[in-house]
Amino acid sequence: MTQRTFEHAKVWRLGADIDTDVLAPGAYMKHNIDVIAQHCLEAVRPEFAAQVKPGDVLVAGANFGIGSSREQAAGALVHLGVRAVIAPSFSGLFFRNAFNLGLLLLTCEQALLIQEGDTVGFDGRNLLRAQGDPLPCAPIPDFLMDMVQAGGLLRLLKQQAQQTANH
Amino acid sequence: MTQRTFEHAKVWRLGADIDTDVLAPGAYMKHNIDVIAQHCLEAVRPEFAAQVKPGDVLVAGANFGIGSSREQAAGALVHLGVRAVIAPSFSGLFFRNAFNLGLLLLTCEQALLIQEGDTVGFDGRNLLRAQGDPLPCAPIPDFLMDMVQAGGLLRLLKQQAQQTANH
Repeated sequence: MTQRTFEHAKVWRLGADIDTDVLAPGAYMKHNIDVIAQHCLEAVRPEFAAQVKPGDVLVAGANFGIGSSREQAAGALVHLGVRAVIAPSFSGLFFRNAFNLGLLLLTCEQALLIQEGDTVGFDGRNLLRAQGDPLPCAPIPDFLMDMVQAGGLLRLLKQQAQQTANH
Repeated sequence: MTQRTFEHAKVWRLGADIDTDVLAPGAYMKHNIDVIAQHCLEAVRPEFAAQVKPGDVLVAGANFGIGSSREQAAGALVHLGVRAVIAPSFSGLFFRNAFNLGLLLLTCEQALLIQEGDTVGFDGRNLLRAQGDPLPCAPIPDFLMDMVQAGGLLRLLKQQAQQTANH
């Protein structure tokens, strides 16, 4: 069960226009998600997959997740335990896939004020930094936060079906 | 049943950062969708709701649909018969809501090459203009096009349930 807030998350800082092929490289798409995840972001941060720790977050520029609709782009980040991706804007398809898989995306106009190596928290509405003002994020409706908390859409539907069956 | 392609659609050209309050003004949110739709885009195009015709399309700049998660922003466009919205990027939440309601969004980097009063077609992959090269759009997965064709997620699920029951 994932919380709707987080604290002290280590930041991996990326640029704009990170596409799905950088997240889930085409050369490995016939493999399982654990293999794909080993190559996640290697084109821009070769050390990422080996060094990222569960609970870390990505902070990136505009248009995160553009490119193909491949669900493995979000799946690789989930597999590696990435807690959230923070960016000024996301590809619509990536946004849909990510929440379906339980990956929290925070749309923050001022995301690029956050630097590599910073730690950030999220109080459900704002990003909190050790120094500097809180950075507001676009509000996320409850049904999407429910998906994040449940670990994805399918798990949420299973939980709801069980709850219905128990009444 | 909506088609996955269209021809000769009249273009309404808008700027960037069209937010959900411009699409579905907060002052009317207690009303039904037919009332909200009468005020759609009135802050930027006062004549829009009265003059838009079913099958027309919107072409806009980046970040279309930013702001709140209110579903009526997409619902107003559906109510008015807007065939598609074409923009270089969309808010993730708006993207999700729009397809759920059966509204086609085409992500096109070069959208702003299309001018007010142009007519455009869509062949399932590219935007076709009377003059100028075809403009490629980000591919849309089948399950989202199925939603558009069915008129939204709920109608698609009903169709699928009926098909299952008939077998």
